[in-house]
Amino acid sequence: MMKRLLATFVAVATMAATGAHAADDLMTRAKELFKPIPHVAPDIPDNPLTKEKVRLGKMLYFDPRLSSSQLISCNTCHNLGMGGDDNLETSIGHGWAKGPRNAPTVLNSVFNIAQFWDGRAKDLKEQAKGPVQAGVEMNNRPEVVVATLKSIPEYVEMFRKAFPQDKDPVTFDNMAKAIEAFEATLLTPDAPFDRYLRGDEKALTDQQKKGLALFIDKGCAGCHNGINIGGHDYFPFGVVEKPGADVLPPEDKGRFKVTRTADDEYVFRAAPLRNVALTAPYFHSGKVWSLKQAVAIMGDAQLGKGALSEEDVDAITAFLKSLTGKQPRVVYPILPPRTDATPLPKPMTQK
Amino acid sequence: MMKRLLATFVAVATMAATGAHAADDLMTRAKELFKPIPHVAPDIPDNPLTKEKVRLGKMLYFDPRLSSSQLISCNTCHNLGMGGDDNLETSIGHGWAKGPRNAPTVLNSVFNIAQFWDGRAKDLKEQAKGPVQAGVEMNNRPEVVVATLKSIPEYVEMFRKAFPQDKDPVTFDNMAKAIEAFEATLLTPDAPFDRYLRGDEKALTDQQKKGLALFIDKGCAGCHNGINIGGHDYFPFGVVEKPGADVLPPEDKGRFKVTRTADDEYVFRAAPLRNVALTAPYFHSGKVWSLKQAVAIMGDAQLGKGALSEEDVDAITAFLKSLTGKQPRVVYPILPPRTDATPLPKPMTQK
Repeated sequence: MMKRLLATFVAVATMAATGAHAADDLMTRAKELFKPIPHVAPDIPDNPLTKEKVRLGKMLYFDPRLSSSQLISCNTCHNLGMGGDDNLETSIGHGWAKGPRNAPTVLNSVFNIAQFWDGRAKDLKEQAKGPVQAGVEMNNRPEVVVATLKSIPEYVEMFRKAFPQDKDPVTFDNMAKAIEAFEATLLTPDAPFDRYLRGDEKALTDQQKKGLALFIDKGCAGCHNGINIGGHDYFPFGVVEKPGADVLPPEDKGRFKVTRTADDEYVFRAAPLRNVALTAPYFHSGKVWSLKQAVAIMGDAQLGKGALSEEDVDAITAFLKSLTGKQPRVVYPILPPRTDATPLPKPMTQK
Repeated sequence: MMKRLLATFVAVATMAATGAHAADDLMTRAKELFKPIPHVAPDIPDNPLTKEKVRLGKMLYFDPRLSSSQLISCNTCHNLGMGGDDNLETSIGHGWAKGPRNAPTVLNSVFNIAQFWDGRAKDLKEQAKGPVQAGVEMNNRPEVVVATLKSIPEYVEMFRKAFPQDKDPVTFDNMAKAIEAFEATLLTPDAPFDRYLRGDEKALTDQQKKGLALFIDKGCAGCHNGINIGGHDYFPFGVVEKPGADVLPPEDKGRFKVTRTADDEYVFRAAPLRNVALTAPYFHSGKVWSLKQAVAIMGDAQLGKGALSEEDVDAITAFLKSLTGKQPRVVYPILPPRTDATPLPKPMTQK
């Protein structure tokens, strides 16, 4: 697996680095490597989007009653007003527990190959079930979630409409499907870079274009390409030199935990770089707060010390700022009220 | 003070309880005691509402960076999707600390005589400064809040526009004023009871009308009247008989802590009952989850055991459900991103 990945990586980097490129074919080269964010949500083969499902998913996304404390919602750690994450080193969850890794953004996450830093959830509906149950996140149990949702008549009706084929529509799986449907709509189109990819030469500044050229030529685009400028495949962190333990803590071996393959030690899903200017701090450890510093660290770790000059780092950072798109416009949902049958919150107890 | 209040209480209760009232003058009597929620925010004499100020206040209301952990916003405990509070017994704050009292709703709170259960903040701008600094809530310091806001150019610009007279507009006081301005817009007009007060005889069911008549005749309206059906003055909890320690914990003496007057022991601001069906659990202790049970407890405590039959309790509960208004429609704000100058979150430390 890793061999294939490394071959891809080297191939793209080589392709990008060879030959003198005229400035005016930068756009052509960019179009080969990247794709703009679309304006409408993509199809999800096993979970067709309907208005009813998306509407339900939005409510569930914002509903803290999915957590055992009834305080924490999906939006707590994947805040739609803050680039789709919590802007914290690692998330804070049930009982003020500190999570193990930096929260990835929910924005455009439907385009990732799989979810989480190690890709352990194959899609967003599988992902959605994780934090709801994780002891350091929402700390709940599926049967309590289902009992909660079934106790609220408005939710029962909404599940019925969102899953009209199902005899018993209020299930933990359908909760996850509805959340996935909503999340699939959380796209950020029309970033300056998207406008550039669609042919607007003036959408990027000169420095951003220089950064884009470096991003391709130096090899960054070997791992960070496609629609999300990353997120589409797995790569080792520290190709040339492992960063220090502060940035790459030795105990977190990344995808190794999923595949149990030695080759996958310290392998992570390439971070999707869409809206990266909004999602500090950086890396799975969340230890780096400055985007510029993150670029410099990646230069050293993946390309080798000295591969990027300070001017290069500045230009690439400027390019990355062109990846900030139009953030989703979401009307805050009014949640249906609890009933006397709704399980009580358990803020102070274990599961 | 208390004597005056009790005199008012008895006067209203007596006025309400005397004479046989024809069903068709119920509306007239209701109009004397209550006022509908307006469709537009009221004037605040020392803090004129402007579009710029309300817009800024909305962002601040949703911005978790006002807290030292950068996780907790005003909306965490005063959730606009959940009747304007957190639907918890008492709030959970910094370090998962349990707050001392049930979070009151922010909705229509601009009409309250003062803020908090004991009225210790004279208005919403004074209130807004409390939780930001409280160790068990947002645990922040004014200078850190100001440094945070000043580090974000978009905020600086918004403060400048919201407070055009001020030389140094980014201040803790102006933060509170902007939040007050936004909160003053959080009204819930057009509840069935509002439509009734405006002359629509059919807006209430027969049971709700019966409940309204009981609410007036039995004396509930002695404390719970005005625009917010409460919230306008202070009254002792347990006029006739103190509820048990579970509902009225002996250590929380209410307004006594503010006035240090013996008469004010166990005196609280009458709970504003607007949207009460959305804001379980009830009382300052947050110990009672069922609205019907809360009504029964109030019957025993304020009117005397046996004052309300079970049928009466049902009718009053039905009437209280007519107080649920149209919830505010709020587009979730996209918050301006941090900069390298923004203070880092301190989720794991004391102030």
